[in-house]
This record gives sequence, C-alpha cells and structure tokens, in this order.
Amino acid sequence: MTPAQRARLDIREKRHTGSTRGLAPGYVQCNLAAVPQALAFEFLLYCQRNSRACPVLEVCDPGSAEPRQLAPGADLRTDLPKYSVYENGRGREVTDVRALWRKDLVAFLIGSGITFDAALERAGVPTDRYRWVLNSKLPTVPAGRFRGAMVVTMRWLTPGQAIAATQVSSRFPHNHGAPIHIGDPAAIGADLERPLFGGAVPAVPAGMVPVFWACGVTPQAAALAAGVDFMIAHAPAHGFVTDLEADKFCTP
Amino acid sequence: MTPAQRARLDIREKRHTGSTRGLAPGYVQCNLAAVPQALAFEFLLYCQRNSRACPVLEVCDPGSAEPRQLAPGADLRTDLPKYSVYENGRGREVTDVRALWRKDLVAFLIGSGITFDAALERAGVPTDRYRWVLNSKLPTVPAGRFRGAMVVTMRWLTPGQAIAATQVSSRFPHNHGAPIHIGDPAAIGADLERPLFGGAVPAVPAGMVPVFWACGVTPQAAALAAGVDFMIAHAPAHGFVTDLEADKFCTP
Repeated sequence: MTPAQRARLDIREKRHTGSTRGLAPGYVQCNLAAVPQALAFEFLLYCQRNSRACPVLEVCDPGSAEPRQLAPGADLRTDLPKYSVYENGRGREVTDVRALWRKDLVAFLIGSGITFDAALERAGVPTDRYRWVLNSKLPTVPAGRFRGAMVVTMRWLTPGQAIAATQVSSRFPHNHGAPIHIGDPAAIGADLERPLFGGAVPAVPAGMVPVFWACGVTPQAAALAAGVDFMIAHAPAHGFVTDLEADKFCTP
Repeated sequence: MTPAQRARLDIREKRHTGSTRGLAPGYVQCNLAAVPQALAFEFLLYCQRNSRACPVLEVCDPGSAEPRQLAPGADLRTDLPKYSVYENGRGREVTDVRALWRKDLVAFLIGSGITFDAALERAGVPTDRYRWVLNSKLPTVPAGRFRGAMVVTMRWLTPGQAIAATQVSSRFPHNHGAPIHIGDPAAIGADLERPLFGGAVPAVPAGMVPVFWACGVTPQAAALAAGVDFMIAHAPAHGFVTDLEADKFCTP
C-alpha cells in the first residue's frame, strides 16, 4: 500500500479526521466540488476562466464518485475527512456524504496548494504555521451563474522564504502556481477579520511579509453567490489525496 | 496598432493568406475549434482530460465569434487565414467562415506550439524547417463521443537543440509544454507516410533527432472519429494571433 492509499484508508475508516496538511507528503492533493449535471458545463467554464484559482485535474463521469485517473478505486464520498455541503445557498460541514450523493452529481477535482508543501519544506520554507484562507476583493471572470471574488491563501514568510516559495510554487501550475500578490493585504481586499480557515489573524511579526496564492475554495464562494441548489465540496484544508506524485506531476 | 492587431487585420483583409508561423512573433497563437452547443460540455471535458494536446485558453459565449479575453474586437470568422470545416465526418478547407457560422456554435481557443517559436529561436533552435504535423498511435482519454489518437508535431533537432527546446517549451504549459517523446517515431506510431502538414518526410539527417510535441490538431481528429455533424477549426499551422504576449503568459 502506498502512503497515498494508506492516507485515504485512514480517512475512510475515520482514523484520520483532521486537515490533510502534512498527510502523505509528496502526493498531489485536490479540492472537491460536485455539482448537479445541469450546472456542470457552466462550472467547468468558470474553472477554465479562473484556472489560477480552479485548476481542474479531473472531472468524473456523471454520478460517479471514483476518480479513475487520479486514484482508481477511491471513493470521493468517504475519502475526504470533512466536507462542506451547500443547499439553497447555505453551507454546513459533515464528515461523510454517502447519504447525500446524487446520481446527477458531476465531481470536479481541483488542484490544491497543499500539494507543494513538501517541496516548500525542502526549500527551507516552513508550512506548519502562519497560513490562512481568506476572502479577497479580487474579481473572478464570470461564467453563467458562477461569479464572485477570489478566495486566497495567505502565508507569512521572511523575504528569503517568499522568494523561495515563489520559485517553488511556480513549478506547480496545476496547483495554483506562483503567488498572485506579495505585501499589503488591503491591496487585494483580503478580509483579515473573518478568516475561513486558520483561526484569528494576529499582527504580522516584524520582518515577515504576507504572500498570497489563489485558493481552491474560490468555486465554493462562486457557488454560494450563484445560489446553487446543491453542491458538495471539501472543507477548507481537508482535501483528497491522489495517487499522483507531485514531483512527477509538476513541470520541470 | 500592435503587431498582433496588424497581423489579424492583414489576415482579415486577405493580405496574409499563408501559415501563421513567424507572424507577429512573441504573441500567443491559438488553434480554433467551434462545435455546436449540444457538444460543448463533452468537448470541454475532452480537452480537460487531454490538456497536453488541448490546452484551452478561452471559451467564447455561445454564438459569439469574439474572444473577449484574448483579443477583444477580433472576429474568429475572418481572422484566421485558413479553416478546416467538418460536416458529417468529412473535412474541407476554406478561407472565410462568415457564411458558415451558426448561433449555436461554441468557439474554443486552444494554445498553439507556434507560440514558443520565437523563444526557441532566441535559444538557438531554428523553427523555419524540419517541422511536420503527424498522426500517432498515442491514445487520448475519451470524453463522451470524443476519442482517438493524438496528433503530434515533429521537429528534427540536433541533440543540443533538443535539450534547449525541451527547456524552453517546458516554460509554456499552456501551449503544449514539454515534448511528449524524443527519438524513434515508431515508438509512438507516428505516421511518417501521411503527414498532415509540412510535406513529405525525407530520411532524418545524420546527427539529428526527432522530437515530438502534442499538437492542437488532436481535437479535430477526435471530432472526425466522433462523426460530429458540424465543426469549424483552424487549418494546420494556420492559427489565431492573440493579444497576449508570450513572455508574459509563460510561467517563470
């Protein structure tokens, strides 16, 4: 059994229930968004038009919860530790979606920035702290009903770490790639008051600089803005571990 | 007027009628595939599943021939020098598709390898000869009715040029990226007998090695295999010049 298969089994059997950060390092992790088939073309188009935030790595066949290309045999209904379920514009978090899955759902797997954590660590960039998911005011390109502002990942880094992190993440264009902003959070309207993940944001320590990446939670915000009647997504930082090895997947 | 706008105007007014290779160097060029809306989701899915061959850079709104993101004001019905039109599984080439455009067509712009010709030249790799478009036996991942083998671009390069070309093209993941094969054409079933573009293939000169890239003609082969009733595409090596500057678009 590979570390990725072991991680998925631990999640399926509820031995691992927290964030997937640090889990099966070196394997590509994905965010999940499953929408009714009637919305699938609009959603795929929204992802194409906003590929920095929504890099689509696989689209399952309608009704299927098995990502045949990224992890044959896996089950998207049980193999993520936590889900965000949206019904009629309202969200709630659950740990199992077997009873909620529908035959008309089309599941999208979207590359996650957690993927390059191991590469960042090797480059001397710590990934175990100073990391938040925030709303911003950066616009996305609409497609059909999907529209809204970009959700971003903010990390606090030293200047040297910021440079190394830019170099490393640039090698992962299918997992949000290079930063979209460095410096003042206000310049992109980042909402430090209401972080979506990572807890309260204190004052930035002297000598550290905020660095921002497009975040895979963006399509959830777009779905909420669209008032979609039903959507199953990952909970922030609770992703799906694929069989793809990040070092083989990244561009050279 | 920018070199890209000038090139499109020259094409629209029939002053430029040949291949777009070497035209407006430094600007991202795209291949075209316009399919009826009923096929649009399957086609977008086919492109997503085969993004090395079909990197989608823009999808226009149904019926629209204006690529608002890549070249606002341009007209995809007149701004390519030559088109391949497929009806009921048969293809023919025309130079203007205004009379053929339909309200239900969804136009896809797919990154072209011609885009990195200028960067190859700067790296000492000649691009004005030894270049063909060939059928191969490499499988693609099917989506709905779309399926078939990959079409490839073959270049003959010296070993040093092959290394430089691999380095340079890797920086352009949205334009087919790195080579998919180096060496023996038979290993990927490349059909040297019936090239789709570039003329007859002679014996490879001593000291040169064939290098292969995924090619944007692939979706046309898939559409033919699917027997789609109608599709408008670019003719091989007759692309669409966008306003995007390649050096800004490529990943660092």
